Amino acid sequence: MRIIIVGGVAGGMSAATRLRRLDETAQITVIERSGHVSFANCGLPYYLGGVIEERSELLLQTPQSLASRFGIDVRVRHEAIGVDPAARSLTVRELDTGETCELLYDALLLSPGARPVRPPIPGIERALSLRTVEDVDAIAAAAERASTAVVIGGGFIGVELVENLARRGLAVTLVEGADQVLAPLDPEMAELVHDRLRASGVRVLLGRTAAAIESSQVVLDDGSAEQADLVVAAIGVRPDSQLAAEAGCALGSQGGILVDEHFATSVPGIWAVGDAVQKTDAIDGSGAMVALAQTANLQGRSVADAIVGRPAADRPVRGSFIVGVLGLQVAATGWNERRARAAGRALRIIHTHPGDHAGYYPGAEQMHLKLVVDADTDAILGAQGVGASGVDKRIDVIATAMAGGLRAAELGRLELAYAPQFSSAKDPVNMLGFIDENLRDGLAENLQWHELDAAVAAGATVLDVRSPAEHAQAAIPGSLLIPLDELRDRLDELPDGDIVVYCAVGLRGYLACRILAQHGRRARNLDGGLATWVPGSAVMRPSGQ
Amino acid sequence: MRIIIVGGVAGGMSAATRLRRLDETAQITVIERSGHVSFANCGLPYYLGGVIEERSELLLQTPQSLASRFGIDVRVRHEAIGVDPAARSLTVRELDTGETCELLYDALLLSPGARPVRPPIPGIERALSLRTVEDVDAIAAAAERASTAVVIGGGFIGVELVENLARRGLAVTLVEGADQVLAPLDPEMAELVHDRLRASGVRVLLGRTAAAIESSQVVLDDGSAEQADLVVAAIGVRPDSQLAAEAGCALGSQGGILVDEHFATSVPGIWAVGDAVQKTDAIDGSGAMVALAQTANLQGRSVADAIVGRPAADRPVRGSFIVGVLGLQVAATGWNERRARAAGRALRIIHTHPGDHAGYYPGAEQMHLKLVVDADTDAILGAQGVGASGVDKRIDVIATAMAGGLRAAELGRLELAYAPQFSSAKDPVNMLGFIDENLRDGLAENLQWHELDAAVAAGATVLDVRSPAEHAQAAIPGSLLIPLDELRDRLDELPDGDIVVYCAVGLRGYLACRILAQHGRRARNLDGGLATWVPGSAVMRPSGQ
Repeated sequence: MRIIIVGGVAGGMSAATRLRRLDETAQITVIERSGHVSFANCGLPYYLGGVIEERSELLLQTPQSLASRFGIDVRVRHEAIGVDPAARSLTVRELDTGETCELLYDALLLSPGARPVRPPIPGIERALSLRTVEDVDAIAAAAERASTAVVIGGGFIGVELVENLARRGLAVTLVEGADQVLAPLDPEMAELVHDRLRASGVRVLLGRTAAAIESSQVVLDDGSAEQADLVVAAIGVRPDSQLAAEAGCALGSQGGILVDEHFATSVPGIWAVGDAVQKTDAIDGSGAMVALAQTANLQGRSVADAIVGRPAADRPVRGSFIVGVLGLQVAATGWNERRARAAGRALRIIHTHPGDHAGYYPGAEQMHLKLVVDADTDAILGAQGVGASGVDKRIDVIATAMAGGLRAAELGRLELAYAPQFSSAKDPVNMLGFIDENLRDGLAENLQWHELDAAVAAGATVLDVRSPAEHAQAAIPGSLLIPLDELRDRLDELPDGDIVVYCAVGLRGYLACRILAQHGRRARNLDGGLATWVPGSAVMRPSGQ
Repeated sequence: MRIIIVGGVAGGMSAATRLRRLDETAQITVIERSGHVSFANCGLPYYLGGVIEERSELLLQTPQSLASRFGIDVRVRHEAIGVDPAARSLTVRELDTGETCELLYDALLLSPGARPVRPPIPGIERALSLRTVEDVDAIAAAAERASTAVVIGGGFIGVELVENLARRGLAVTLVEGADQVLAPLDPEMAELVHDRLRASGVRVLLGRTAAAIESSQVVLDDGSAEQADLVVAAIGVRPDSQLAAEAGCALGSQGGILVDEHFATSVPGIWAVGDAVQKTDAIDGSGAMVALAQTANLQGRSVADAIVGRPAADRPVRGSFIVGVLGLQVAATGWNERRARAAGRALRIIHTHPGDHAGYYPGAEQMHLKLVVDADTDAILGAQGVGASGVDKRIDVIATAMAGGLRAAELGRLELAYAPQFSSAKDPVNMLGFIDENLRDGLAENLQWHELDAAVAAGATVLDVRSPAEHAQAAIPGSLLIPLDELRDRLDELPDGDIVVYCAVGLRGYLACRILAQHGRRARNLDGGLATWVPGSAVMRPSGQ
């Protein structure tokens, strides 16, 4: 069996090695345009920043090691330029010589990945992009001579580039066209990332796009200019599906190669995996463009089974991700609130700000978690987390709970491993479940940060149940202060009508709501407390608490 | 409603505060024998070791704070000494005065916890135990004057005491009657803990019991003696169920209070939660004595609902735990291999030794994972992990997968959050799933470390597929060396008959098995490689690899 694989990184190489394990006799050829296969593409930003010191560390395998261990014929600096599906023939150009040749296949696997988007602005040729080892070499060389950098785009790669250019000592400006970085996050979660970027000395320009790239600066859409000895465009990626399209493979509306659940394209004999293919959203079955290494690797492994005729089925995606940003772990899985509201779901939204481990054990770090729940079914739709430590664990646990079909309230019943240096006896994930259960059962009613203004306009009293000292430091304008421990004795001070209660993170607010509800008052808790509230006025936002 | 709670720590206090949130008008009284409620019992060893510097950090709540915030009447240094279920009356003795009084209740909740086991040996009165704040004060005071310590018992509290006494600079001997510490671990996993204890200077005596405690030494069952200015007994705990028994509550065979799924005991009006009650094993529904804070806290929260008549059901337990041992995370969930074999299950056992994150990103630490799978159903029965970092996350993910009813092979399909500093594109949990799937599908066959001798006796060839340099450093006696990359060309060097393949951790062994199987040879992979193999002979055990 002759198998040709186009693209020799995550999906392609996972497929190639699994194919060998499944079939000693298959003739396996890998065509890779860049000079390297099986390189650590997720490590490239960290090599730029010097975290990964040796370039050789990026090269997990070489054509030689793949030949000797797996008997795979790996051709780097070769580009697949045409497919004849009827003849089952692939045209390949050797980039160094320009020579072309025809390779026959029984199965063709396309795993070409995604290309960086390049906006059509004057001077775009000056902007570097990051996709390959060669790209990082070019950025590193340019960074050697640079003292200022502009990164255009605040997605995963953009923020990783910002971090690592800053680590090299460059003054870095991040230009992002949206109002926030990291689009999978909801805005109040992204705000935590903005805070960290700015606190680390990064200039963050949101709602701004690059209009032109000049020799030493980037001109923005508002006419201002940012100094830039080095410019990197990291605006996003597009599926590298041109070859597939020319071969007749059907594409989705966002340009991704369409595959069935066995990774077969619409053209017989051609399979596809990885960033170039359209995935299936795990929640509603819609098409999803998710360009993440974990899924590419899994698809690569699975398609090998499909090609040799073993049972294999694609896995719908939730887009679970984690990215490091200057000491923060930023992670999420599933839908964000924006997506869930757009889908018209009735929602329960929960914010908490727990420690990564028991507060009495030294070194506890506060994290910020958000859970998006379908209010009708209690299904977990998604979760987001930002914090210095332990966010990875909680998002992975929630992603696993979603895979297992657990309802949100069942998070409270998960039996997680506890010792005080690693967690809390009621783990942050358990707490999310408890809060959801209370909301579900009507024991509590909460109010989101973006709903506060409307509640006040409708006449609600805003009640701060923290201490006078906390209130003096930062408070919601016009809020009435009655510390929680005095509330039972001071109920008569509350005006008639609805009450919105708040505290620092939402816990005392909940306790106050329970007292008020049992005295016949409608009280809603400001979800996540001041730590989640995004002020619409001049009040200082409490930092870190 | 008059509610009396006996025991004011994890379960009792969770119940008390939830009860108040559910019912503002209930009269809630907590009876606690020690001088403190709601103290951080899991933090006690770390206060001893000076990790937690301030004693006040241990006291999460005080009777005063609980009165002002929750309106709870907390009586410390009061002991419940008798129950009259017919009269719904509890007799309480004030320890400082000796006075007794009768308290009437509508609902009585017993959450008395568990008492340290005290072996009936001469001098046992010299041995301290650890349960309360007063206990840790006594141990700390004794440690001030001590330079040598013997800890009797290598369970959770035992190893935590060993670590923290060593942290204080004492020369510590650990005496454990079994052949291993931490009984929930299988022996090859416990061996990693023994290695760490010994490498840290702890004297570890296994299969030894204390015969007598003398003024400055502990005499062991073999007649030897260990110097001990300080002796702590941490042999285990027994449910503190005497009061319940006297009240007529039915007990289980191991002395735990029997409760129904709503935490009701056999006596009307009496509920019970926490370490004193018998739980239900999540895998086979059998009775289980599990004394862990996480479950006690959850039960406390749930029983409050039950007492006020809200829906509430107990959660079966898997005994998920984590304990720190001198820089190692040691964690597990569900059944170990020993338990699963005793239950007569057909098993798939998997050991892996992955990094906590991608190897190319600096600071990766190797961990050791074990998965126990029901071979007939692919159900996950349990998992164990030992390592410096990231073990907590993987055990929690697997515990969640078990709660969601995922099969072992589905672990390979979990979409976990990946970036190279936090995980691998194929996370260790994914790898467990892949290996299970390969075993399930017959792509691989493995052999456990304890099955090697029998295979050799039956005539199997033991094949080392590592490099000559690795082979020279440590190898299984009599094994034939053919490096993996040469295997295809040297198949004719293999004798007829079965083959057992091994490498460092099992990956190259698997690749070799695939080659051999496709050449018609029966080859089994030594599961987990040399890193799991426990030598029965004089060969050096490879350390840390």
